[in-house]
Amino acid sequence: MVSTVRILVTGAAGFLGRHIARRFRDTGWRVTGFDVTGFDEPGVESSQGDLTEANSVDHMVAAHDVVAHVGAIGDVYLAGAEPTLAASVNVVGTANVIEAAVRHGTRVVYASTWEVYGEPRYQPIDEQHPTMPDHPYSITKLAGESLLLASSRLRQVPAIALRLGTAYGPGLRANSVFRLFIDRARNHEPITIQGDGSQGRQFTHAYDIARAFELAASSPLSGIAFNVVAPETVTIKELAERVVERYPTELTFGEPRPGDVPPALVSAERAKEELGWQPYMPFSEGLDDLITSLDRDSR
Amino acid sequence: MVSTVRILVTGAAGFLGRHIARRFRDTGWRVTGFDVTGFDEPGVESSQGDLTEANSVDHMVAAHDVVAHVGAIGDVYLAGAEPTLAASVNVVGTANVIEAAVRHGTRVVYASTWEVYGEPRYQPIDEQHPTMPDHPYSITKLAGESLLLASSRLRQVPAIALRLGTAYGPGLRANSVFRLFIDRARNHEPITIQGDGSQGRQFTHAYDIARAFELAASSPLSGIAFNVVAPETVTIKELAERVVERYPTELTFGEPRPGDVPPALVSAERAKEELGWQPYMPFSEGLDDLITSLDRDSR
Repeated sequence: MVSTVRILVTGAAGFLGRHIARRFRDTGWRVTGFDVTGFDEPGVESSQGDLTEANSVDHMVAAHDVVAHVGAIGDVYLAGAEPTLAASVNVVGTANVIEAAVRHGTRVVYASTWEVYGEPRYQPIDEQHPTMPDHPYSITKLAGESLLLASSRLRQVPAIALRLGTAYGPGLRANSVFRLFIDRARNHEPITIQGDGSQGRQFTHAYDIARAFELAASSPLSGIAFNVVAPETVTIKELAERVVERYPTELTFGEPRPGDVPPALVSAERAKEELGWQPYMPFSEGLDDLITSLDRDSR
Repeated sequence: MVSTVRILVTGAAGFLGRHIARRFRDTGWRVTGFDVTGFDEPGVESSQGDLTEANSVDHMVAAHDVVAHVGAIGDVYLAGAEPTLAASVNVVGTANVIEAAVRHGTRVVYASTWEVYGEPRYQPIDEQHPTMPDHPYSITKLAGESLLLASSRLRQVPAIALRLGTAYGPGLRANSVFRLFIDRARNHEPITIQGDGSQGRQFTHAYDIARAFELAASSPLSGIAFNVVAPETVTIKELAERVVERYPTELTFGEPRPGDVPPALVSAERAKEELGWQPYMPFSEGLDDLITSLDRDSR
C-alpha cells in the first residue's frame, strides 16, 4: 500500500534533498525529485525545473500526494550576496508550491531552519519563541514558512514546517564549515576558525533530518512548525579540534564572518512528543562517517 | 538647498504613495514617482516601471538621494488571493530596491505595517514586540522590512521602516472598509459589518503618514522600525455608526472575513521621541474630510 503514495522532493539534487529522496525511496514511497539541476539517483524519478516557474511547479505537484519542499537557495553565503535571488526562489518559489498544493489538495512538508529565531530571548528555544531573523537566508526561509502555515489555516493546505538544525552528512556542500576544515586539514593546510570558535551548533545529521520528513509526510498533523534539531551542542572550536585529531595540522583564528548566527539552544521536545522524532546519530559517529565518505570520494 | 534633494516615491500612483509624493513636493523636495501604473500629478515627475525588474529599479534609484518605498501589493484581499504576486512585488521588488540602494548609497524609508505583529502578546505593542504575521500581505511586507533592516546592519544601507496604522484619507481604494460603508450608505443601501464590529482600529490619516515619511527621509537614524499609528481607537461598528449618522441607512451584521487581523493597541511613542512624529488629524475630522472628498469626486 505504501508504495502507491507519491512524493515530490524539491531540491532533490542538493545535499539535503538527496538524503530525503533516498529515505522516501528506501521506505517504499514512489519518489520524484524536482530540481533546477539534473541529477541521477537510482529509484528516484528525475524532473528538471525551476521553482520560480508557476506552471511547471503546478504540473509536478498535481501528480503527487505529498511535497517535501526542500528546494531553496540554501547556501547562506549565496543568499547574503544575492538577496533578490533568495527572495525569488525561497519566497516566490514556495508561494508557487503552496498555490499548487491549494489547487490539488497536496500535503506539504517544508524545510525551514532554526535560524528563523534570530537572537534568543530565552533558552532552550521552543516553537513559541519569537522569530526575528536578520539575514537574507533566514528571512526568506521564514517568509516561505509563514506563507505555508497561513495557507494551512486560511485555505486548508495540510502542512508542516520543520525548523532544521545545522545539517551535516555525506554530500555536504564544499563551502560548509565541515568541508572547509576537513578539506584543508587533509591537505596539511592550516584551519582558520572565524571568531573565537566558542559559538555552539546543534549539528543535526542528514539521516535524522530525512527521517523527520518521512514522519511529517505521514502525519495527520497540520499547521505546525517543529524544531528538528539534535540535542548535542558542539562548538566550532571542538569541531576543528576533532578534525585536527584525525588530520594533524595548524589551528588559527580569524575575523568573525558578518551575519554569522549567534549560538542558541534549541529544543526538539515537541517533535519528539507529536511526531515521534528523535535523532539517532551521535555527533562523533556522524563526523567519522562524513570524513570516511570524503576519503572515499577523493580516491 | 532642500530643493536639491531628490526623492523617489515608489507606488506613487497608489493611495498612500500619492499623498507621500505630494507631501515631499509641497515641502520643497524634487520628487519622482515610480509606479507600474502611469499617473499625472503636478510637480511630480512620473516614471512608469515594475518593481520586479531589477534593472529599471536600479536605474531609477541611482538618480535619487532617498527612496520612499511605498510600492507594493497593498490590497490585503488581493495579496490573500494571489500570494505569489504579493511575494514577487513585496519581497523580490523590495530586494531590488535594497540592492540598488546598496550600490548607490541611497537612503530607504519603507512602508511597513502594524499588521506585522500578528496576535498581540502584550499591549500596547511597541517595536520590540514579536512579529508573527499570519496573512500573505503582512508576511510579505515583513519579509521586505526584515531584508531592509538586515541590509542596514550588514551592508550599511541607511534605512528606516515605518509600521503604519490602517491608513485612510482622500483617494482610498474602493474596497477599503471606509469606501464600502460610505459608498453604500450614500446610495441608501444597507451597510454590512463583517463580524460583530467590536474590533478596534487605530485609523491613521494619510496626511500624518506622509509627514512621518518626510521626517524619516530627513533623519540621520538608521536600522530602526517605528510604529506610525494614531493613538485613537475606533471600532468598525463606531465607524459604521458615524457613516450612518451622515447618510441614514440600515446596519446589518455578517460573517467575519477570514484572515481579518485581530485588534491590538499599538504605541507610537518611539516615533514621537526619536523622529519627532505625532499625528495631528483627529479621526472625526479625517472622516468628514474623506466624506467631503468622496462627495466632490461623485459630482
